[in-house]
Amino acid sequence: MRTESEIIGRISRGLADRGASKYKANAVRLGIGDDAAVLRGSFLSRGGRNADDLVLSCDAFLENIHFLANVHSADAIGYKALARTTSDLAAMGALPRFFMLSLALPTSRTGPWLEGLITGMARAAREFGMVLIGGDTSQNPTVVMNITVGGDLADGHGLTRSGAYPGDGIYVSGTLGAAQLGLELILRGLYRDARWKRLLEPHLRPKIQLKLGQWLSGEGRQRAIASAATDTSDGLSTDLTHICQSSGINARIYAAQIPVVKVPKQLQRLGLDSLDLALHGGEDYQLVFTVPTAQASRMRRVYRGVPITRIGEIVPAKKSGRQKGRGGSSIELVDAAGKSAPLTPRGWDHFKRS
Amino acid sequence: MRTESEIIGRISRGLADRGASKYKANAVRLGIGDDAAVLRGSFLSRGGRNADDLVLSCDAFLENIHFLANVHSADAIGYKALARTTSDLAAMGALPRFFMLSLALPTSRTGPWLEGLITGMARAAREFGMVLIGGDTSQNPTVVMNITVGGDLADGHGLTRSGAYPGDGIYVSGTLGAAQLGLELILRGLYRDARWKRLLEPHLRPKIQLKLGQWLSGEGRQRAIASAATDTSDGLSTDLTHICQSSGINARIYAAQIPVVKVPKQLQRLGLDSLDLALHGGEDYQLVFTVPTAQASRMRRVYRGVPITRIGEIVPAKKSGRQKGRGGSSIELVDAAGKSAPLTPRGWDHFKRS
Repeated sequence: MRTESEIIGRISRGLADRGASKYKANAVRLGIGDDAAVLRGSFLSRGGRNADDLVLSCDAFLENIHFLANVHSADAIGYKALARTTSDLAAMGALPRFFMLSLALPTSRTGPWLEGLITGMARAAREFGMVLIGGDTSQNPTVVMNITVGGDLADGHGLTRSGAYPGDGIYVSGTLGAAQLGLELILRGLYRDARWKRLLEPHLRPKIQLKLGQWLSGEGRQRAIASAATDTSDGLSTDLTHICQSSGINARIYAAQIPVVKVPKQLQRLGLDSLDLALHGGEDYQLVFTVPTAQASRMRRVYRGVPITRIGEIVPAKKSGRQKGRGGSSIELVDAAGKSAPLTPRGWDHFKRS
Repeated sequence: MRTESEIIGRISRGLADRGASKYKANAVRLGIGDDAAVLRGSFLSRGGRNADDLVLSCDAFLENIHFLANVHSADAIGYKALARTTSDLAAMGALPRFFMLSLALPTSRTGPWLEGLITGMARAAREFGMVLIGGDTSQNPTVVMNITVGGDLADGHGLTRSGAYPGDGIYVSGTLGAAQLGLELILRGLYRDARWKRLLEPHLRPKIQLKLGQWLSGEGRQRAIASAATDTSDGLSTDLTHICQSSGINARIYAAQIPVVKVPKQLQRLGLDSLDLALHGGEDYQLVFTVPTAQASRMRRVYRGVPITRIGEIVPAKKSGRQKGRGGSSIELVDAAGKSAPLTPRGWDHFKRS
């Protein structure tokens, strides 16, 4: 059986590496393997200078896989559908502009349910400054969505996963594990309990970090603050591994420094552990990023109300260790007692979980 | 219950008409309601001249709705998935450049089936000159795909559905009804019969009309030949109605002039009628377009091996008739005896059929 990254690798070799090579070489600044694809504005405008790059990303959002239409409100589904894909633009530092919606749904959901979906999605679109420019509709027994988002980015100023370098600090925004805690409450049937209602919010209505991403990218006016970035969509252990693999480096993070979600005592007894949720829980849509020493003085503890925490540093890759040792882990986790152990990515992988 | 066009109208009012209005006014040359969306290259390049426009379109391709994974080969599914969406670029006269693939599939299909899918899709990508630049993968009990395609178009030279004018001739490429005939053989369980194998091809491996679309658009060097165009994805009666509605005109077509698929006698006995298939059968991915009298001399009977047939002409809209009379039909069909009757769109509508 293949893991998700093996499947992506196979698709990429089959479809992204061949053909149309002149366009690929000239126009595609960034193809498969980052949060979003980047097309060179200077190529689109036939050599014009100062052209913005175009950033594109797409995500499926499927009933019973990514959401439960009988548990999640149509409004929350609509909001989150657009937010989670637009988070890929945040991770690049791009300015969101437009989106396309491919929507398949059963006839029974074309009335009030569709109204709710549109209301939630329209709220997200207003918040992010996006407009719908196209799409597709079909009938299907379950709700199937795909959202394609587009944004722009000052020529060559996008954040990628591949720029981290030994010595860079590793930072995260917000609190990690909060969205997974909300999901666990739903999966365990505890979501109707009024005591935990507040804990569902990060799962139902994630806040994405567009302004933070733009600030970290230098906004096209100055040198970027971050050397690499991605969003925590799959979980820190998996998302930080993406940065390690793309950048060819390793990471050392400190458990005591990670801004973990607070888990009430009653829920801890059910086996819900703060650190575990923070390391491996998906869908927080925070940013994890690296900052070179030379830029460290520009960092803040809070940016526009969002806390930023340094959780570790980039270290050189151990060549032998990366190939085979200790499960191929790129991350070293140092516990509160100072003891270090490799951290295996256990975040969201659609195909590992089956 | 809502029809597909009512659903699209509702989504459009909720998400495309509001917010981000400056971007919409300046950058979006064409939003919802045509074959593809068009973004102004001159805006993307901050006012640069001679910038190509960017054309974007997306389509879902769903197991048990658009294809049957146990009947259609993975290779045919892969080819058709990319071809049918790229046909929207053909209808605009655009040059295909890139695509994004959002793919959800069961674990059981991640082996040889996925290999077949990639092989078919790679063949289409080579043929059309496209490269994969991004995507998304998930696990799902059925195969769910969404393809987003992008292409470019000389500044302002795209073909739309809205430019037809009374007096223009109406033309179609190729043969109509051939893809539907293939689908009917599959739905009736006749697809294993060696006699009909050849008849399945237009359904399994549609030929899309990229070169024809580009030629009709004037290719950015000269005035367009066509005043309006769309592809026959839903069926002539529905697709030509889209042109009528977008252009605010009516159409008169002649049954005897329509290049209908030939149906063998044995299949005619099963109720398969050539004209019916040609008028209402979907997925031919030919072009239906209108040509002003002033450009008629540039038309050909065959373009690069593809036959082109004049099937009628654009006539003024009858205001009262369009509002309520005769089911709101915009098309008048003249039969071989010269008798005329309104033609109701009976092509593919996901929600009407339920």
